[in-house]
Amino acid sequence: MSEARQRTELSRMECLLLLGEVPLGRVVFTQRALPAIRPASHLVEADQIIIRANLGTAVSRRPGHDGGTVIAYQADLIDAAERLGWSIVVVGRADHVTDLTDVDRYRRALQPWVTAESDDIIAIRTDMVTGFRLVPAVA
Amino acid sequence: MSEARQRTELSRMECLLLLGEVPLGRVVFTQRALPAIRPASHLVEADQIIIRANLGTAVSRRPGHDGGTVIAYQADLIDAAERLGWSIVVVGRADHVTDLTDVDRYRRALQPWVTAESDDIIAIRTDMVTGFRLVPAVA
Repeated sequence: MSEARQRTELSRMECLLLLGEVPLGRVVFTQRALPAIRPASHLVEADQIIIRANLGTAVSRRPGHDGGTVIAYQADLIDAAERLGWSIVVVGRADHVTDLTDVDRYRRALQPWVTAESDDIIAIRTDMVTGFRLVPAVA
Repeated sequence: MSEARQRTELSRMECLLLLGEVPLGRVVFTQRALPAIRPASHLVEADQIIIRANLGTAVSRRPGHDGGTVIAYQADLIDAAERLGWSIVVVGRADHVTDLTDVDRYRRALQPWVTAESDDIIAIRTDMVTGFRLVPAVA
């Protein structure tokens, strides 16, 4: 029950590869000065994470207003019983995707969470990418 | 692939019951003015969520300093392929548990994430509890 585990830090490249292997994560932002978190679907494209989620007014719709709101995006794949797996966090400036061809393409690629609910297509720059893997501890 | 889903809001009681059924979640806080998120293990006790995680200095250790830092805690159980499941968020003031008997009891009940890493036992008040269940949409 209490087997030892240790944390192995992952490189930026390993993190982005692992992120690309799962469809879902959680977007973290500030809403009315309080921490907020919400499930989202995502894909990794070049040096951006593209997410589909309903964030209300947390990310401004004015393009280029102030270089983007900083949000965090987290995904993990952890076996709770074994305490093995990985967790990754991307922190970066986020903006609505405005190019209609891109929006259409991302909407086809990303499942909405809730049918017919308004949702946004948002690009998060991968300014900071950190992650770790939990592995059995070396005795 | 694109079956319709709708969101059903859960009551506070349903949320706390579901939270109690899973061992892991994610704690959301502010670190150096940036959003931060980290896996944690938790248990539900009375009207508090007790978590075990390494939060550094995000939550003050001075008891009663200012009524606690507000943090968010999220857990979900979602089938990514089927897009069915639930997600719950608790937002509330958080404080280190200081009673040594309680700390000891919680350390026995809660698995550490990483062996031998310093971690904290933190109580989050359930000031705001929200959650939803994704269910097949009614045609």
